Amino acid sequence: MACKKEEDKRSLLGLTVKKEEDLSEWFTQLVQKAQFADYTSVSGCMVLRPNAFQIWENIQQIFNSKIKKTGHKNVYFPLFIPEHLFEKEKEHVEGFEPEVAWITHAGDTKLRERLAVRPTSETIIYESYSKWIRSHRDLPLLLNQWVNIVRWEFKHPRPFLRTREFLWQEGHTVHATKKEALNEALYILSEYVDLVENYLAIPVLKGKKTQGEKFPGAMDTFTMEALMPSGKALQMGTSHMLGQNFSKPFGIKFLSENGKEQFAWQTSWGISTRLIGAIIMVHGDNRGAIIPPRIAEHKLAIIPIVFDKSKKDILKKAREIKEKLKEFNPILDDREIYSPGWKFNEWELKGIPLRLEIGPKDLEKKQVVLVRRDNHARKEVKEENLEKEVQKTLESIQRSLFLKAKKFLKSNIVEVKSKKEFIKAINENKMVLAGFCERGECEESIKSETSATNRLIPFHAQPAKKCIFCGKPAKRKSYFSKAY
Amino acid sequence: MACKKEEDKRSLLGLTVKKEEDLSEWFTQLVQKAQFADYTSVSGCMVLRPNAFQIWENIQQIFNSKIKKTGHKNVYFPLFIPEHLFEKEKEHVEGFEPEVAWITHAGDTKLRERLAVRPTSETIIYESYSKWIRSHRDLPLLLNQWVNIVRWEFKHPRPFLRTREFLWQEGHTVHATKKEALNEALYILSEYVDLVENYLAIPVLKGKKTQGEKFPGAMDTFTMEALMPSGKALQMGTSHMLGQNFSKPFGIKFLSENGKEQFAWQTSWGISTRLIGAIIMVHGDNRGAIIPPRIAEHKLAIIPIVFDKSKKDILKKAREIKEKLKEFNPILDDREIYSPGWKFNEWELKGIPLRLEIGPKDLEKKQVVLVRRDNHARKEVKEENLEKEVQKTLESIQRSLFLKAKKFLKSNIVEVKSKKEFIKAINENKMVLAGFCERGECEESIKSETSATNRLIPFHAQPAKKCIFCGKPAKRKSYFSKAY
Repeated sequence: MACKKEEDKRSLLGLTVKKEEDLSEWFTQLVQKAQFADYTSVSGCMVLRPNAFQIWENIQQIFNSKIKKTGHKNVYFPLFIPEHLFEKEKEHVEGFEPEVAWITHAGDTKLRERLAVRPTSETIIYESYSKWIRSHRDLPLLLNQWVNIVRWEFKHPRPFLRTREFLWQEGHTVHATKKEALNEALYILSEYVDLVENYLAIPVLKGKKTQGEKFPGAMDTFTMEALMPSGKALQMGTSHMLGQNFSKPFGIKFLSENGKEQFAWQTSWGISTRLIGAIIMVHGDNRGAIIPPRIAEHKLAIIPIVFDKSKKDILKKAREIKEKLKEFNPILDDREIYSPGWKFNEWELKGIPLRLEIGPKDLEKKQVVLVRRDNHARKEVKEENLEKEVQKTLESIQRSLFLKAKKFLKSNIVEVKSKKEFIKAINENKMVLAGFCERGECEESIKSETSATNRLIPFHAQPAKKCIFCGKPAKRKSYFSKAY
Repeated sequence: MACKKEEDKRSLLGLTVKKEEDLSEWFTQLVQKAQFADYTSVSGCMVLRPNAFQIWENIQQIFNSKIKKTGHKNVYFPLFIPEHLFEKEKEHVEGFEPEVAWITHAGDTKLRERLAVRPTSETIIYESYSKWIRSHRDLPLLLNQWVNIVRWEFKHPRPFLRTREFLWQEGHTVHATKKEALNEALYILSEYVDLVENYLAIPVLKGKKTQGEKFPGAMDTFTMEALMPSGKALQMGTSHMLGQNFSKPFGIKFLSENGKEQFAWQTSWGISTRLIGAIIMVHGDNRGAIIPPRIAEHKLAIIPIVFDKSKKDILKKAREIKEKLKEFNPILDDREIYSPGWKFNEWELKGIPLRLEIGPKDLEKKQVVLVRRDNHARKEVKEENLEKEVQKTLESIQRSLFLKAKKFLKSNIVEVKSKKEFIKAINENKMVLAGFCERGECEESIKSETSATNRLIPFHAQPAKKCIFCGKPAKRKSYFSKAY
């Protein structure tokens, strides 16, 4: 009897809008109803609930294992940055100061100097680096931290994509030569791309930011950008070649092998919890989220289809299967107060990649039913083939999600030949490829006239003769779109 | 030639005071010279460098695996707490407000309401819990987060033991009954004790805080306390039975199975990076730190003893051994600019539990030399027995460190029969066991007259007839000492 009541409540739990009709509302509902995140009474700050945080833990584990293999180590630097230190690099402070949250008081005491809550940690970290680095033997220095960041933006907040506090990792490395630093910045971007494409199943465009869009204080910023279903780009991670822009004001110097004092070369790089938002937005459908198997904490949910007569045997078998499939960390949903249908909906909403059903007939036939989250395909699988089938199906889901997103990206790139076509394509929410002069002035006009920004100059850019927007000479084509 | 120069620098890197002569200076030097932590220009805030942070990562991994097995999940709640929310539980706000760092401005904008930087997260978390919990089916709710915490103390800071920012985990659970909540609080304490005694090799006293020493807002606080070489106690972790003290002001209510609305029962509990300080202080000696093997990132350092003639063969063998012992994550120190002696000192300073030396004679005899960090015992080991010997030796080091610390704790507990003996023992930096009336007034007198505090009432306390300090009736004996 409980079942009927519960079924009635289902509509409250499901999504009431379609992804293709109102993406923004669909996303906000999904994030809350599938319990990825929730709003709090701190404006613009969210709770990351277990369904989201376990994705973050998996991202941490994957990325840590990559960078630890190449000699990077994790550390923790203070949350606060004294105002005088924060202001040491001019472009940097101008870029971040408008969004800084300031500590002015501790208890009843007014502090002598205000403290910035880190919007990024270059300045507090490089003060220590200037003490620690003396000789070429101290290089390279390859450190990383996983921390919370505060940027008090006044734009409309959006779960994961734009919040005033978020979690990220920030790597900060120091090298003896320009070449080594550049190699590091590019190496890290390649690891970011591997993480995002091969685990999160999100294809990206890769390249360099224009001087107007680069990180404040960097010499060059390398980036990967994904295209969201809205046609807006999402910056998925950036890796900065800092050159000597920080080592000079911070005095990060070393004695080279031949005894000469030199300024060091640096990089910094980061990815954040916005990646979780990208997963939800790119892969989700009208039933809920779809978490790519390689990043999902639980790869499948086992739902016993229970009738009074066979209940004991079914539950016993379900537990056996759970044990057998433990490498996939399955959820066994044996709650008695919910119907199978209710459970199907719940795990679909939360995005578990695969469902395993087992009922009395399956028990007889020594089989189970696998249902894919991505295309809802059902398949009867003999028990003896189960582990292999689950593995194969998960791999197929992973691949399908990536290919689907890749197709979307490709089919939404438009190469334009004129300013008119440029504006039309941006208005149609496309990712636009266009010859561009790369002058700051022209970049500013594009921004104000079209609301699009330059997303990146691809690594192997096609040559171009003139700028589609201003007509001046251009060397190469680059990408423009609206962005989050 | 480089070697000689390097050797000269050694005294700069080593400790210049003895642990038994000036513990405080020894600790401060060790923390910095072994690169566990460093000061920053933010007063009272430290950098946790890789040598310390990897211990923290291991603690996280061990504790996560314990609590995830029992159904706890990790989350992330905002760093900031609006002032009105922070003030919702009276005892709680009184306990923490004097140390709160306040955000008043973002960019140039003055905030309408001040935001507290979390000194602990009960209030911001329980606001969400009051929204999420509706029915007995939502219980128990078992969440935990690993975050940074700010408490702007004005006492003298000490690396790891008292810093204005530190890292911790805080668990926050909600239960349907008082009994379940009490069981949870006690279960977590038992996991803390297992972590600290069996991994960190630090013996603790276990019990309950007095009403005067409990967590502000708790019904009861359970604690484990270790004795530092100074004779001061260090609180190593606490687990609070919150009762309904927060569920009432925050409105955390649920419908019970028989349809009655009830206030929930709660716990909260935490351990912090101060544990790293305890490891260094308890186990270290005059050569440096000693990291217990079960918590050490690298269990051994391999030092090839290289002469020109045999260099190639020795290095080849050293790499072979590194591969063979990879489950112990060894460091192979094949740097050519340092002498073996220099390397011995460096890894002793940093506390690597075991050293493996291999020189030309060892190569001939198909053996290596193992040197224990704790007692410096050397042992020649045949290559064929290496893995087994390393495992055995590490276990023996782990056990020895614990037993040595246990002996110290036991021999520094003094049971007293009079106020005079009490004061004398406290002055001699002992852990004092005494009959105590448990009246707040008497507790205050003891604090002001002796500078000792009540550390805990043991779980199976011995009965007592009267209070050693005031002479009034007492039920049981409890522990007093000075504390960090």
